[in-house]
Amino acid sequence: MGDKMDGMNYRLPKRRDGQKTFDHIIKTAKTLFSEKGYQATSVNEIISESGIATGTFYLYFDDKFALYSYLLASYRRGIRKAISQGIKDAKTRYEKERLGLRSFLKFAWEDPLAYRIIWESMFADKELFQEYYKTFSRDYVRQLGYAVKTNEVRSDIDLETLSYVLMGVSNFVGLQILFKETLTDEELDYITDQAMDVLTHGMFVK
Amino acid sequence: MGDKMDGMNYRLPKRRDGQKTFDHIIKTAKTLFSEKGYQATSVNEIISESGIATGTFYLYFDDKFALYSYLLASYRRGIRKAISQGIKDAKTRYEKERLGLRSFLKFAWEDPLAYRIIWESMFADKELFQEYYKTFSRDYVRQLGYAVKTNEVRSDIDLETLSYVLMGVSNFVGLQILFKETLTDEELDYITDQAMDVLTHGMFVK
Repeated sequence: MGDKMDGMNYRLPKRRDGQKTFDHIIKTAKTLFSEKGYQATSVNEIISESGIATGTFYLYFDDKFALYSYLLASYRRGIRKAISQGIKDAKTRYEKERLGLRSFLKFAWEDPLAYRIIWESMFADKELFQEYYKTFSRDYVRQLGYAVKTNEVRSDIDLETLSYVLMGVSNFVGLQILFKETLTDEELDYITDQAMDVLTHGMFVK
Repeated sequence: MGDKMDGMNYRLPKRRDGQKTFDHIIKTAKTLFSEKGYQATSVNEIISESGIATGTFYLYFDDKFALYSYLLASYRRGIRKAISQGIKDAKTRYEKERLGLRSFLKFAWEDPLAYRIIWESMFADKELFQEYYKTFSRDYVRQLGYAVKTNEVRSDIDLETLSYVLMGVSNFVGLQILFKETLTDEELDYITDQAMDVLTHGMFVK
């Protein structure tokens, strides 16, 4: 695979009771990372807070970074799944972008820790962070390339730059939403449509 | 002031020799934060790596968080200064956005640690992080409001959402640039213009 995030530094459980323990360790680690950050959390704390034997941790993870890699990969899958679920009925690239953005914002609203985990990964491991966004960008460029062929997206824009523009829009409109105390579905729709309006017509008076 | 970032938990030196020591402590702390992250760096390490007496540190800073607040505030000033320098000859809002974006990207390229410091602040202190972006957003909304009045920016867009869209574009196109091994001024111009093109004409074929 050559993909550091999906490397073999963790092992998934094979049996149902193992799965329960594994999920419990992950949940404990997420809470600790969320409260104290990745750097300040030790493997010993994860073990003692989980109430497991030391050997049990190492059954699944080589070290703290391995657990972190698993978490980041699972958020990546989670975000992709939320987006692909969200856009499954979309017929046009516009609809895909709009529903994709809305799903991403909803995911962020419902799981704010995902944000923190991914953003902190810049500190946990610079390479892991780069790989996360570079992979996202590459996939985005491919999708946008199809939409250029079907004459939906302009052919005269650099697609790498466009992919970072679009990731920036979702991530920062995501922040705008995270900073709110409450959020109704109507507000989520409104903000999504406003962002899409800028991506469609631009921000300037013509 | 009621502004946590500009609170009184640090004291600026009054004399030139104090300034030298102060700058040296800041430089050492930046290196440590950059290598190990904020959470994993201790005050004792900052003191011992700086080669200063313990009392000297506390002359300027209440604690590690105080030093961090100073750093974040100084990056905020640095970014604002780079942008306002960059846009000083701009006549239109379009020019302000383009030159502002270019200055921000150049600042990020030249001082990648600024990125990490601000992004990690989400972990160092959630409130500080929120305040940083909320303040930026509020100022942006005010500037955009003027441009709506002069009929340069569309009056039918929610300016709060637009401000997060624009911050997202600069921050993520900033990442695109950070991930590059080399960057010429021509490449910087090209990427800036591509992003501005999307913000002007949108991404879709009409």
